[in-house]
Amino acid sequence: MQALWLEQQQLFLRDIPIPAPPPGEALVRVRLAGVCNTDLELTRGYYPYAGVLGHEFVGVVESAGPLHGRRVVGEINAVCGACAQCRQGRRSHCERRTVLGIVDRPGAFAEHLTLPAENLHPVPDAVPDEEAVFTEPLAAAFEILEQVHIRPVDTVVVLGDGKLGLLCAQVLALTGCRLTVVGRHRAKLALLAARGVATALAEETPDVKADVVVEATGHAAGFEQARRLLRPRGALVLKSTYAGNLTVDMSRLVVDEVTLVGSRCGPFPAALAALARRQVDVRALIHARFPLREAVAAMAHAQQPGALKVLLEMPA
Amino acid sequence: MQALWLEQQQLFLRDIPIPAPPPGEALVRVRLAGVCNTDLELTRGYYPYAGVLGHEFVGVVESAGPLHGRRVVGEINAVCGACAQCRQGRRSHCERRTVLGIVDRPGAFAEHLTLPAENLHPVPDAVPDEEAVFTEPLAAAFEILEQVHIRPVDTVVVLGDGKLGLLCAQVLALTGCRLTVVGRHRAKLALLAARGVATALAEETPDVKADVVVEATGHAAGFEQARRLLRPRGALVLKSTYAGNLTVDMSRLVVDEVTLVGSRCGPFPAALAALARRQVDVRALIHARFPLREAVAAMAHAQQPGALKVLLEMPA
Repeated sequence: MQALWLEQQQLFLRDIPIPAPPPGEALVRVRLAGVCNTDLELTRGYYPYAGVLGHEFVGVVESAGPLHGRRVVGEINAVCGACAQCRQGRRSHCERRTVLGIVDRPGAFAEHLTLPAENLHPVPDAVPDEEAVFTEPLAAAFEILEQVHIRPVDTVVVLGDGKLGLLCAQVLALTGCRLTVVGRHRAKLALLAARGVATALAEETPDVKADVVVEATGHAAGFEQARRLLRPRGALVLKSTYAGNLTVDMSRLVVDEVTLVGSRCGPFPAALAALARRQVDVRALIHARFPLREAVAAMAHAQQPGALKVLLEMPA
Repeated sequence: MQALWLEQQQLFLRDIPIPAPPPGEALVRVRLAGVCNTDLELTRGYYPYAGVLGHEFVGVVESAGPLHGRRVVGEINAVCGACAQCRQGRRSHCERRTVLGIVDRPGAFAEHLTLPAENLHPVPDAVPDEEAVFTEPLAAAFEILEQVHIRPVDTVVVLGDGKLGLLCAQVLALTGCRLTVVGRHRAKLALLAARGVATALAEETPDVKADVVVEATGHAAGFEQARRLLRPRGALVLKSTYAGNLTVDMSRLVVDEVTLVGSRCGPFPAALAALARRQVDVRALIHARFPLREAVAAMAHAQQPGALKVLLEMPA
C-alpha cells in the first residue's frame, strides 16, 4: 500500500506492506485523513519520529469482529492497561503508550492502519467523512471543558485562529461564555463572526482581563500575549505544542497566582455528539483536498501561512 | 526612628521620622519582624524597590481606634477597594495595591509602620510574639489549600527545605496526605522528621510520581526537578519567586497535561488559628535574633546557605 513516510525530517511516499493487526487490534481501511500542526511540527523535529505520519482519520474496519464493516474514527493513544496511569484512569497518559503517527506506531497517511479495537468509535450515519475526520482535533478542543470549569459568566479569549483555535472557539462558544477570538487572519476570523463569535485582530487586541485564555497560536510567542490578556488567578490553557523551549518569568505567574493548564487529547464521544447534533461547523475549515499520491505536496500546502485543514483522500 | 533602608540593592540603617498614619490606617509599633527570602531577593534586584524593607511582623497598635493597644499582625497588600480585582473579591491582586516593604509602602524593619486598619488581625494571647511573627509566611503556605484540593489519599512532595518549604510541609501535613519533603539540609529535614513527616535528600530523591508537587526551592533549577516528580495531570504549585527568567519546555507540560498553580499570599485567620491550636511548630525555624541596630548584619546572616528564619527585635 501507499503511505507518507517521515524520516529524519524528510517526507516521501513509500510502498509498504498492508499491516497485519496484532491480537486485540483491528485493520482499518482509511478513507480520509487530516493534516494537523503536530504533523508539521514533526517534520521540524518536534519529536524524533520515523515512520508513517498522520493521526486524524476516518475509515472502515476490514478485519473480523463486532466493528467489521463499520465506519470509525480512532483514539490515537494505544495503551498498556496495566501501568499506574492506566490503572488510575489516565489512559491517554499510559507510561508505555504508542501514539498513532507520533510515537512508535504507523500513522493514518496510508491506505490502511491498525489500532486497538477499544480505540475505535463508530461514526453516526448523520456525520459524513469530511466532518468525521475532524473528530480527533475536535475532541482535543473538548478536553478544555474536561479540565477547566467554564462558566456562562466567564470572559474567555482564544488566542490563535488556526485549525485548533477555530475548533476550540466553537467548543467554548457552546458554554455560553463571553468569548473573543484573537487572530491574524481576517478570513479565518470571519468564519467565527458568521457564527456570532466576537473576534479581534491581534494588532487591535481588546483591553480585556479574561478569566480564561486559551493559547492556541502554535508558537512560543503566544504565551506572553496570552498571559497579558489574563486576569490575576485566571486560567491559561496551553494547547500549542512546538519544537523548542520558552523563556518565562515564573515569578510573574506566582505573583499573579496564574493557573497554567496543559491540554492535549480529549473525549471522542463529546466530539462525535457535537458533530451529529450540528453544534459545530467543521466543513468551513477545509482548505484543500489532495489524493494520497500527492501527500508530499499536500504537506507543503498545509505549511503555507493561513492554510486551514488539508485533507488526504485515500484510493477507493 | 531607626529603619533598615534598601536603595539600589544597598542596605543601610537610617534614622527617619515616625510615620503619620493617613486616614483609615493605624500606627503600629513593631515588636518583632522576620526576614523573608523575598527581602533577600529584593537586595538582588528581584523588584526595583527603594525604602524600608520587611513585611513579616508582630506589633502593637498605638493609634486610636478599636484596635488601640492590641497586639496585631498585618496583611501586606494595601488595596483600593474599587478596582475590578477588589470588586471581584481578589483584593490581594488589587490593581493599585501597595505592598508592605515591597511595592511603594515602607516596611516592617523599623520601629513603627502604618497599615490600613482592615489589614490588621489581633493575635490570640496563646500565641507569643516569636510565633505570631510567622503568621504572614504561614498564611502563604495555607494559600496552597485555598487553591488546590489536597485529598488525604494524595501523594504530595514539597521540594525545598527552606523557611517557606518547612511551613508548606507542616500545613500540607494537616491534610493527612502522603507527604514527602525533599531538601538539601539534613538538619532542616530532621525538624520535619521529628514531626512524623517523611523526608529525603535531593540526591536520593524518591522514585515517586506525585499528585501534587510544591516547588519551594527559591531558585529556577527547582522547576525541572519538580516537574519530574509529578504525575501526568498533576498539579505543580509554584511558591518560589526570584529574580530572572526560566527556560521551559512548554510542550512537555501540554503533553503531560500538567497544571501549574502560582501561589502567593494567603489567609491570615487560618494561620493564626493553626498557631493558636499548636498545629504547627514555627519556633524550630528560628535561626537567629538580632536587634534592629544590627539589621545589616542580620540580613547578611540570613543570606548564608542553610540559614532559617532570622528575626529582628525592635527597641522596647
